[in-house]
Amino acid sequence: MIIGKVVGTVVATRKNDKLVGSKLLIVEPFDNMDKGKTSGRFIAIDNVGAGVGENVLVVLGSGARVGCNMKDSPIDAAIVGIVDTITEM
Amino acid sequence: MIIGKVVGTVVATRKNDKLVGSKLLIVEPFDNMDKGKTSGRFIAIDNVGAGVGENVLVVLGSGARVGCNMKDSPIDAAIVGIVDTITEM
Amino acid sequence: MIIGKVVGTVVATRKNDKLVGSKLLIVEPFDNMDKGKTSGRFIAIDNVGAGVGENVLVVLGSGARVGCNMKDSPIDAAIVGIVDTITEM
Amino acid sequence: MIIGKVVGTVVATRKNDKLVGSKLLIVEPFDNMDKGKTSGRFIAIDNVGAGVGENVLVVLGSGARVGCNMKDSPIDAAIVGIVDTITEM
Amino acid sequence: MIIGKVVGTVVATRKNDKLVGSKLLIVEPFDNMDKGKTSGRFIAIDNVGAGVGENVLVVLGSGARVGCNMKDSPIDAAIVGIVDTITEM
Repeated sequence: MIIGKVVGTVVATRKNDKLVGSKLLIVEPFDNMDKGKTSGRFIAIDNVGAGVGENVLVVLGSGARVGCNMKDSPIDAAIVGIVDTITEM
Repeated sequence: MIIGKVVGTVVATRKNDKLVGSKLLIVEPFDNMDKGKTSGRFIAIDNVGAGVGENVLVVLGSGARVGCNMKDSPIDAAIVGIVDTITEM
Repeated sequence: MIIGKVVGTVVATRKNDKLVGSKLLIVEPFDNMDKGKTSGRFIAIDNVGAGVGENVLVVLGSGARVGCNMKDSPIDAAIVGIVDTITEM
Repeated sequence: MIIGKVVGTVVATRKNDKLVGSKLLIVEPFDNMDKGKTSGRFIAIDNVGAGVGENVLVVLGSGARVGCNMKDSPIDAAIVGIVDTITEM
Repeated sequence: MIIGKVVGTVVATRKNDKLVGSKLLIVEPFDNMDKGKTSGRFIAIDNVGAGVGENVLVVLGSGARVGCNMKDSPIDAAIVGIVDTITEM
C-alpha cells in the first residue's frame, strides 16, 4: 500500500455501470513513500469517506476490488484508510 | 486508475479470438497524473464508446477484464469512463 | 497492452512442464508506446504465430494466462495480435 | 519478492474493516535489491511479527492476500519473512 | 517473463509457513532485457533446480503462484527455466 494526499476529484458522466455511485479521487503519493508504480497522480475509488486534503492509505491492484466488495468492478486503486500518524526512523 | 487522452488506433487482423470486435485505442497518460507503470503510450480496450481526442478514465490490470465482462480475454487495460471535469488543488 | 517488435528467441531445455511447447519470444516495446513496466526487452509467449521482425500486440499480467487458455501456466506476457497499422495523432 | 528494512509505522483509526488488527509497517527496499515498482518507501502488512529496524522479505501484489490468509482484504504487500543472511556474488 | 542471472541466496528462519522448503534466490535482470518493474535485484522462488551463476527465465506476479503449484503461497516471482541460448536481432 502507499500513503498519499487527496488532491482533487474527477467527474465522468458516461462510464462503466459498476462505477456509478463511486467517488473518484485524485491521489498524490508522498514523495518518500511512493512505489515506483505510482510516481505521479492517479485516480482511486473512495472506500472510507475520504475528502480533499486528507492523507490516506491506498491499496493498488486486485486488492482494491476484492477488499472493497467491488470484486467485479473496473478499479485498480482504492482509499482504505485515513492516516492519523506516521512514525519514521 | 489513470486519466489520459485517446491519441490513436491500432488495427490487428490476426489476433486472439477473444479480441475480435474490441476497439484497440492508443492512450497517452496525462503528465501529472500517470502512474509510473504507464509512463508512455499504451493500448486499451474501449468499454464506453470513447473516441480519438477524448480524455478518458483507464483501469489497468485484472480489473480491466473482470470489470468489463471480459473475464477470459487477453487484456490488461480498458477505458471505463469519459472525463467531464478534473478539479485539482 | 503494449505494442512492440519481436527481436529474438530464447531456448530453455530445463523448464516448468507447463511451458513445454510454448515459443518464448523476446519483445522490444516501441519507444513511444511502452508502459513504464516494460521499459526494456522482455520475454512473451506466442499465441498467434508471431515471428522475429513482426510488430505485435502484447498483453501483460494475469490476462496473458487466462486469455490464452494457459490459466495454470507460469507466464506473465503473451503476444495476442500481429499489428497491421498504427494511426496516431 | 524484495528485501527491505522496516523503518516506521502508520496509524489509521478510520479504515476498511478488514484491516482492523493488522499492523501497518513502512518498508524501505534495499538499494541494490528493489524492484522498479518499489523504488520508494511503501506500506506492508506484517505477517511474521516483524519490528522496526529489522530486514524483511516482502511479497507484493495478490500473493500478499492469498498467501497470508487475507484473501478478501485490501492489501497489496506483506512482510512474510525476517532475513537472517544475504549471500551475494 | 524476464531473463536474469542468479547472483545469491537469502536465508530467513522465521517466515510464513508456506515458504518453508522453498529456495529463495537473488536474481539480477539482464540489462537489455529487464522490465521496468524489475530494474534491480529481487528475490524469486526456485521451481527448476537453478543455482547461483545460472541464467534463468523468471515469471512475475500471480503466474508465479498458479504456475508453480503454489497457488496459496506468498510469492510474486519464480524461476521457471534455465536459459540455454538467447538469439537476438
